[in-house]
Amino acid sequence: MIERISILGTGLLGTSVGLALRASGFSGSIVGWNRSAEHAQQALQMGALDSVAVDPMEAARASQVVVLALPIYATLDFMEKLAPVLGPGHLVTDVGSTKGAIAEAGMRLFNAADRAAFLPWHPMAGKERGGAALGDANLFRGAVWLFTEVPTWERSLASSKLVKDWREWVVAMGSKTLDLDPARHDELVAWVSHLPQFVATALSALLEEEVGDAPELKDVGGRALSEMTRLGASPYSMWRDIALTNTEAVQVTLLALEQRLAHLRENLRTPELREEFEQANKFRRE
Amino acid sequence: MIERISILGTGLLGTSVGLALRASGFSGSIVGWNRSAEHAQQALQMGALDSVAVDPMEAARASQVVVLALPIYATLDFMEKLAPVLGPGHLVTDVGSTKGAIAEAGMRLFNAADRAAFLPWHPMAGKERGGAALGDANLFRGAVWLFTEVPTWERSLASSKLVKDWREWVVAMGSKTLDLDPARHDELVAWVSHLPQFVATALSALLEEEVGDAPELKDVGGRALSEMTRLGASPYSMWRDIALTNTEAVQVTLLALEQRLAHLRENLRTPELREEFEQANKFRRE
Repeated sequence: MIERISILGTGLLGTSVGLALRASGFSGSIVGWNRSAEHAQQALQMGALDSVAVDPMEAARASQVVVLALPIYATLDFMEKLAPVLGPGHLVTDVGSTKGAIAEAGMRLFNAADRAAFLPWHPMAGKERGGAALGDANLFRGAVWLFTEVPTWERSLASSKLVKDWREWVVAMGSKTLDLDPARHDELVAWVSHLPQFVATALSALLEEEVGDAPELKDVGGRALSEMTRLGASPYSMWRDIALTNTEAVQVTLLALEQRLAHLRENLRTPELREEFEQANKFRRE
Repeated sequence: MIERISILGTGLLGTSVGLALRASGFSGSIVGWNRSAEHAQQALQMGALDSVAVDPMEAARASQVVVLALPIYATLDFMEKLAPVLGPGHLVTDVGSTKGAIAEAGMRLFNAADRAAFLPWHPMAGKERGGAALGDANLFRGAVWLFTEVPTWERSLASSKLVKDWREWVVAMGSKTLDLDPARHDELVAWVSHLPQFVATALSALLEEEVGDAPELKDVGGRALSEMTRLGASPYSMWRDIALTNTEAVQVTLLALEQRLAHLRENLRTPELREEFEQANKFRRE
């Protein structure tokens, strides 16, 4: 039975995990820590936490489950620091958007008989802006949570039990789950998550140059333009780590889209345009 | 005072114009015609029309205002047919998404002292799917309606009065209005409307190839993927005319985005990535 959880990083995702656990009936303790204490206090006031920790290592040691809700490199740093001080009977999990480096660290540092368990986890939910204030108990309803465990990982009985219990809480928070190999995960999210983000960034940056000095022209684009550029508000601070840890896969998707746009540009007046629209329609068929 | 309106083409836009006129208090007659009589009947049943016409030319002659809610080439065909049979005291307007060819025809065929007035009009509203059934009295609330009149057009007093009255009904339907030169209009909508559409089409078509055989993977992308590909459902039948009548302007925007994506791809691991995100953030600043 999981009764003590710590959340390291109380931004949008960390705060939402706390709120969703409470909304799903979790009655144990939830301790939070954040590099900026102000955001942790905000999460506390919103009911996502019972208390705010000053020392994240101490909070982790006193918990059964440690949720690292941090950017990817900060997650990797904490994994290095936590592995030697935790043991069987602890579970560490994360919310990182790429899983290659994190799963590798999980294999190297955790998941042995005398070590804590590590469960690499990626909730496919978020908003274009971060911060505790946007935390939402329903953020994960209907979302897909990806796990990238490696089957060869060995775990103590206590750790295995924690993994099983935590997976049940994930389902209780309203999510569908899917297990993937870490490399396949990174390739897949490059297509369905990272490519859409980088396209929105490039499109927004381009439009800022072309029509940014005439705010009334954004209105002209209406709902379609607003949707296609919403992710343009996403912060560099989050996407830098994704670009650095999934570079090759993202490059493949960007090059493929560049070629597709060139093909479309060269065929605006040929029947090939129909093929492109019909192929696109298929992707959106109900 | 406008009391008799005919709407030729009762798809999404034509039906929505009828419904919005009624919701805004228009109490005159609204006659509709559609190439497929079934869709006209549907618009009638929804309350967008008072009656369905069998002969569109006759319906136009009996009206003060004729709304051409048709694809661009069909609009141009009707302009050719209507000009000789209408006269001062008639106003023809359209909803076409490009205005170069339509404004040219408006200058050549209408807007002389002995001719009907023509008001080129582009409501920046729509949905990714068409048809009378999706007609919506609130489709135009908060949308921008673009007019591309050419200042040199001469009109009879009766026609000028109709133009003024019709512009008042547009405002009554809840829209903001903006007057643009036809060439500037086509260049502008290439950036804020056509480019986003063609990007969504290319992205959807590409993703259909890459992940289309695994429907569960679409779920993984969540709201962001869904938004970035919603316009992938848009029909070729509508966009063909736009691609054919605004080819050069759209090509400029597509090439610019290809170059921007290549720049981003080459800089995933350099500080230049920060510049792109910050430029994009500016476009979305509140």
